Amino acid sequence: MRTLAGEVASRIGQEVTVCGWVHRIRDLGKVSFVLLRDRSGIVQLVFDSKPGVTLESVVRVEGTAALNEKAPGGAEVRAGSMEVLSLASPDLPIPVNQEPDKLSLEAILDNRMISLRNPRILSIFRVQSTILKAFSQLMRSEGFTEIKTSKLIGTGTEGGTGLFAVDYFDTRVYLTQSPQFYKQAMVASGLERVFEIGTAYRAEKHDTPRHINEFVSMDVEMAFIESEQDLMDLETRILASIYSALLSENAEDMKAWNASVPQPECCMKIPRLSYDEAREIVSKETGKKAYEITPEGERLLCDWANKTAGIEAAFVYDYPRKSRPFYTFPAENNKTRAFDLLFRGLEITSGGLRINRHDMLVENVKAFGLDPEGLSDYLSIFKYGCPPHGGFAIGLERLTQKVLGLASVKEASLFPRDRKRTRP
Amino acid sequence: MRTLAGEVASRIGQEVTVCGWVHRIRDLGKVSFVLLRDRSGIVQLVFDSKPGVTLESVVRVEGTAALNEKAPGGAEVRAGSMEVLSLASPDLPIPVNQEPDKLSLEAILDNRMISLRNPRILSIFRVQSTILKAFSQLMRSEGFTEIKTSKLIGTGTEGGTGLFAVDYFDTRVYLTQSPQFYKQAMVASGLERVFEIGTAYRAEKHDTPRHINEFVSMDVEMAFIESEQDLMDLETRILASIYSALLSENAEDMKAWNASVPQPECCMKIPRLSYDEAREIVSKETGKKAYEITPEGERLLCDWANKTAGIEAAFVYDYPRKSRPFYTFPAENNKTRAFDLLFRGLEITSGGLRINRHDMLVENVKAFGLDPEGLSDYLSIFKYGCPPHGGFAIGLERLTQKVLGLASVKEASLFPRDRKRTRP
Repeated sequence: MRTLAGEVASRIGQEVTVCGWVHRIRDLGKVSFVLLRDRSGIVQLVFDSKPGVTLESVVRVEGTAALNEKAPGGAEVRAGSMEVLSLASPDLPIPVNQEPDKLSLEAILDNRMISLRNPRILSIFRVQSTILKAFSQLMRSEGFTEIKTSKLIGTGTEGGTGLFAVDYFDTRVYLTQSPQFYKQAMVASGLERVFEIGTAYRAEKHDTPRHINEFVSMDVEMAFIESEQDLMDLETRILASIYSALLSENAEDMKAWNASVPQPECCMKIPRLSYDEAREIVSKETGKKAYEITPEGERLLCDWANKTAGIEAAFVYDYPRKSRPFYTFPAENNKTRAFDLLFRGLEITSGGLRINRHDMLVENVKAFGLDPEGLSDYLSIFKYGCPPHGGFAIGLERLTQKVLGLASVKEASLFPRDRKRTRP
Repeated sequence: MRTLAGEVASRIGQEVTVCGWVHRIRDLGKVSFVLLRDRSGIVQLVFDSKPGVTLESVVRVEGTAALNEKAPGGAEVRAGSMEVLSLASPDLPIPVNQEPDKLSLEAILDNRMISLRNPRILSIFRVQSTILKAFSQLMRSEGFTEIKTSKLIGTGTEGGTGLFAVDYFDTRVYLTQSPQFYKQAMVASGLERVFEIGTAYRAEKHDTPRHINEFVSMDVEMAFIESEQDLMDLETRILASIYSALLSENAEDMKAWNASVPQPECCMKIPRLSYDEAREIVSKETGKKAYEITPEGERLLCDWANKTAGIEAAFVYDYPRKSRPFYTFPAENNKTRAFDLLFRGLEITSGGLRINRHDMLVENVKAFGLDPEGLSDYLSIFKYGCPPHGGFAIGLERLTQKVLGLASVKEASLFPRDRKRTRP
């Protein structure tokens, strides 16, 4: 029966068997200390002799659990026998047991199979797993059905730019940028409330700390809403639920990054600013008239929200029509009923009310220079009865990045894909 | 405040507002009956006059909830005012309110945006949502971390056949057939126990009721196991948990398909047969010597399991080496420590113990005619210490198909992709 590293302190005096990776070796001659790493944490092993093993080797050790205030977790294992389950080559390409700040992002990602073993780097993905769980649980608790839609589409529906092409037998298809059309179809199917967690693709040449070409999108779509304010209410509940889960389940992981999340109850205080109000705030903060909200403006708005509301987040709604897709419900003065959520200086969500009237949608398709014929499947959703609805998407990697304060969104993707990176 | 169709019976005598789709209209002259469909079910509305609305239109109706034993759910709404939120065109391409058996699979899939409105068809995807939930919950309850890995790989790692190629900026990448290499990397990263729910692709020209080219794979990988029997134990718990959730949450959906699932406690009785034992059973059942296990053999084995163990499922292990990928742990007599799970005549899972020894793996890569150089990222997982481990994958659509008794796996995919179908 295996004892996890984190359980040794509760087995003092007992014979235990621990299994894991050799994290660190300190050879003092008569005695050697080995730090053993497993999924629960790190435990110290004490050997009477040289353990004769390399860093990162996987071992099974039998011994006696003993108190030691100076050891991690307050306990250690006085090792009896050791079995090497997998001997690691001594030429590790990058160190695993050092702080990752000493490594370049390139080195971390080039050696991803090994860098993920670093406890601090690995903690990013425990945080991400909790975000996925909390999101799904909140959605289900509000009557949303989880859907899985195709990532291969026959035509480049939003104009064909920014899409990756796939050779599909004798034809060509494209990787979807979002499940937008499909989640709208599922709202109209009668499910009314749907969510999807899936990959999405953007063939954009950006190479910035906020862009990756493949990402995980947490998508939501909801029927019979009165306005986009209902969507902001829903997203507020989602965020509160995610932060609450992180606080209770990932305290150690957050500590590793010296990170914190807003208190869940503070999410209700996230300011909701119209686009024009947001521009005015940015203008005032910078002393220069802001004609649009740039990434710098997004950072300023979050700072301003932190000062005035105590939370580094802001909803911005009433976005100008020219910056939003054709299916966005229009508002007066060339605005739309679309919104973004900014969190710690970064847009982590886009969403809004959608057009559900067939005639209005066909008109907009044409106004955007798209071909209604190519969109006939999509348009049939609206031709045959579609309730008022809207939705949004949260970028999983961006939210993870901002929760932990990571310098680049690429750090929040297990195997990121950017313009140049297609491996490992 | 909206009342759902399923809630009307609990509001007798009260003023209610219901919203939904016009499912059926029966005009008796002086009085008209409308069946209104929403995400909770169907409720009857009674009008004093012609409602003047088309099938599938989305309406909001105010009225009084009243008892009516003959109405669905035992209640109806005596309609006062009606607002048409979205008027449906009267030329529905396929009927929504009839039994789908009358339609061909082609007609159902060609008109997918509309056919999904059929209550029986839609129920498939409520069942699927429950499967996703029950799978995730069981995994998390056993200490598994959810991961999301790239679906774009730089090289065709398993030989390059059966892969879809993607134009990726100035190079070409491929859509993954499974997250196999990545989930093994994450086991070796120290997470030890991981699961992933993601899309997978097979560029195979099969066009059968059991094949689709894009599917959702529920993947599991687990370290420090003793043998593949541990994996079968785990899958048994997963199935029991899924069946238990379906019994308690999807009774109506199952009834719509006249379907049932095994009692959760019966999962422990699933026979575990070696490949040779399975061949012998098939030989005995058919009276002809079975040299391998064909799809017909898989059906016979499930029938046999039903007769002998009371459950239409069987694990088959000890698969011959030639039919398994290079990373499968070998066993004696040219067998491997791999297994399949057959359920109601169909393979819904492949899995097994993996090779975790670097030297053995390199040897196998060469024996399979693959290039160790092209697999260097993957091989580095094992070069630097990797615990004994194994895992498996459950095909979401195949499991859904078999739970409900659907004729084709394509019915269990919202927007299926086959050799010819790339839309909607």
